Amino acid sequence: MSVLVVGSVGLDTIKTPFGEADETLGGSAGYFALAARHFRPVSMVAVVGEDFPESYVRFFTEHGVDITGLERAPGRTFRWSGEYGYDLNTRRTLDTQLNVFAEFQPKLSPEHRRADYVFLANIHPGLQTSVLDQVNDPKLVVLDTMNYWIEGSRKELLEVLGRVDAVLLNDEEARMLAGEPNLIRAARAVLELGPSLVVVKKGEHGAMVISRDFTFAAPAYPVELVFDPTGAGDTFAGGFLGHLAACDDGRSEAEIRRAAIYGIVLASFTVESFSMDRLARTTPEEIEARFHVLRDMARF
Amino acid sequence: MSVLVVGSVGLDTIKTPFGEADETLGGSAGYFALAARHFRPVSMVAVVGEDFPESYVRFFTEHGVDITGLERAPGRTFRWSGEYGYDLNTRRTLDTQLNVFAEFQPKLSPEHRRADYVFLANIHPGLQTSVLDQVNDPKLVVLDTMNYWIEGSRKELLEVLGRVDAVLLNDEEARMLAGEPNLIRAARAVLELGPSLVVVKKGEHGAMVISRDFTFAAPAYPVELVFDPTGAGDTFAGGFLGHLAACDDGRSEAEIRRAAIYGIVLASFTVESFSMDRLARTTPEEIEARFHVLRDMARF
Repeated sequence: MSVLVVGSVGLDTIKTPFGEADETLGGSAGYFALAARHFRPVSMVAVVGEDFPESYVRFFTEHGVDITGLERAPGRTFRWSGEYGYDLNTRRTLDTQLNVFAEFQPKLSPEHRRADYVFLANIHPGLQTSVLDQVNDPKLVVLDTMNYWIEGSRKELLEVLGRVDAVLLNDEEARMLAGEPNLIRAARAVLELGPSLVVVKKGEHGAMVISRDFTFAAPAYPVELVFDPTGAGDTFAGGFLGHLAACDDGRSEAEIRRAAIYGIVLASFTVESFSMDRLARTTPEEIEARFHVLRDMARF
Repeated sequence: MSVLVVGSVGLDTIKTPFGEADETLGGSAGYFALAARHFRPVSMVAVVGEDFPESYVRFFTEHGVDITGLERAPGRTFRWSGEYGYDLNTRRTLDTQLNVFAEFQPKLSPEHRRADYVFLANIHPGLQTSVLDQVNDPKLVVLDTMNYWIEGSRKELLEVLGRVDAVLLNDEEARMLAGEPNLIRAARAVLELGPSLVVVKKGEHGAMVISRDFTFAAPAYPVELVFDPTGAGDTFAGGFLGHLAACDDGRSEAEIRRAAIYGIVLASFTVESFSMDRLARTTPEEIEARFHVLRDMARF
């Protein structure tokens, strides 16, 4: 079953307590694709500028990502710069340069329109809607968003939320979107906006999946050296949607629970290095081993 | 198997977004006892002043708590006042009046010295040591502490830590005690200080139990109306130690995991009201029902 992601590819400059990375490969679509390709072939729709290094283009193709939808536009590539605090739970954005991303208008090829499993990464909700208008009949659509759109583009966000199957939020975003401080009530309120699944990403505390029928609490993988959390959420989405695509079942409660665990497992690799370095090196055996660590951690 | 708690009993004045409580029954020993008595008879060693309401004394006896160790000293009862923020995850102490608690010197009766399961609630680590010097041969000793002692009485804290079986910390305290920002590494570092179990309380994110042999991630109970989180940690301790005392096995991994779940279940009642009102009304059927909700939430 084909997997499609529409999102950003960019160059990240990151400071953590452990070091600094300068203009390293980043972007939501990149992290998602590098995670989901462990489960199913992935096609990426994104835009980069003329300055985007050829080596990064090769990195995607070498890892089996279909980049026929990676547009190269005149101008500079999207850049983001951020700094993490002592315990890596707080992040400060130092600089955002949209560059070619500012004019991004996703255009799907006939093949991409036939995608079965679609991830609408964190872009303007109006663009997410335009992607939905282009896909033929996807089996599962997962949407990511952020506080910026929740505050500034609520109307467009509510419109696209009404058309997707699942939404990924961190706890702060869930509270903000629902206008409700209690996380459980907030997540249930988001269900009322349309999605049949709300996934709350809680970083070092794991994740929670809430549907009308069940609540699943997924533990965090006990990473001992969180090196750089950038991309963890998009990696989670890649593991989550990748697993559901691999078993071609986005409705089974059992598979949705396992998908969340795969999301957490894949994200546990991402945070162990800058960029997608560790994620790219991950083997199927490592993924299964961490899956079983989590199963052991959760049982009682 | 007998359960003993040494800690505080006091009068709390609390503001939450939902309301205000004035001089309501509080204190670590009180919350612990009201939780643990669901599993085993509990004896409480604490001190109150001459102004401590007789109705609160009766409240304990009516709920089966042995208060022969509740000393009434000349002077005023310990008072604490605090205020919670919007999402109840932040707390600001407005006032602390130690009063008779400042001179508290726990003196255990011959019967209390024979306790099998002992909870050293959050008091000065030197007093915790004096309690350990008085008990004969307990099967399991659990210690609670706080940032105030970690920073100000580290030497005494390390001394008592070397003599207990388990320690309860919240995530901030674990990081502070270990001087290590990563929560997993911090908890493992605390194991090196003596305890064979480290329990990290994470509030709305559940709890984590770390031993040399296993790591257990316990989900939070999905409370939809967190009314007042005061006492949740001591209630957790009561459910945790209470269950281990009831099955008289503080070494079994399976029982330790279940004990943490009972801790979370009991705490989920405490946060639904001011003081111990909801906790006091809790029935065995409600406890088992929430235990099964958590089991269902965690499975995959």
